[in-house]
Amino acid sequence: MQDCIFCKIIEGEIPSEKVYEDDIALAFLDINPVNTGHTLIVPKKHFENIYDLPEEISAHIMKIAKKISIALKNLGLDGINIIVNNGAAAGQIVPHFHTHVIPRLNGDNLPPWPARRPKEKEIKETAQKIIQAL
Amino acid sequence: MQDCIFCKIIEGEIPSEKVYEDDIALAFLDINPVNTGHTLIVPKKHFENIYDLPEEISAHIMKIAKKISIALKNLGLDGINIIVNNGAAAGQIVPHFHTHVIPRLNGDNLPPWPARRPKEKEIKETAQKIIQAL
Repeated sequence: MQDCIFCKIIEGEIPSEKVYEDDIALAFLDINPVNTGHTLIVPKKHFENIYDLPEEISAHIMKIAKKISIALKNLGLDGINIIVNNGAAAGQIVPHFHTHVIPRLNGDNLPPWPARRPKEKEIKETAQKIIQAL
Repeated sequence: MQDCIFCKIIEGEIPSEKVYEDDIALAFLDINPVNTGHTLIVPKKHFENIYDLPEEISAHIMKIAKKISIALKNLGLDGINIIVNNGAAAGQIVPHFHTHVIPRLNGDNLPPWPARRPKEKEIKETAQKIIQAL
């Protein structure tokens, strides 16, 4: 897609540090890593986010995410976050589906998100809404 | 697995608000949601994390994550994070593989993680290390 920075990286018009490539997907290092080794996996075909990504491509990308996670673990990392942000409200900056593989180190102090404990009634009502929307 | 809270939820020994279930996986609401509708998807068979999760199960779970993401979007949410934490260092609390589906709202103020811009040489060296570990 024109004006898509990830499409340009896939086409080689913008350079990147590739770590893995096949016919369906490309993995390269995030130039603004949260931790060293922070990798992005993108489908070569342009899809905006999970809502329109075909299931066989998301399956393939998770397979690559597993491979990269194991490689990072073998390099001595303590943990891995696999993250897909869908929509600007969720922190998606580039509107081309991408999976973050983020290495974690004990004590790296990345802030966990605050959680709350809702009342049982609220949880039941929320579940019913989702079930009806599925 | 004995003493696994998610295995007990799957077995029905601990109650949960289920939103989706099939032979392979179960989706239920997180009792400590980051936002309303925060859902967890777990494989029914016990696997600790992505490192040992069979690829066909991760593919299946992503399929369910897509369904739930679309349902939440249709309920009016602005964005969705799909997150897998692997290892305590990555914020994994229950050692039974689970995928978080977290609804996001514009302006919900969940803090993004700080990123940095490493030197080109450092990025190249990191890529080489990962390629060799793959």
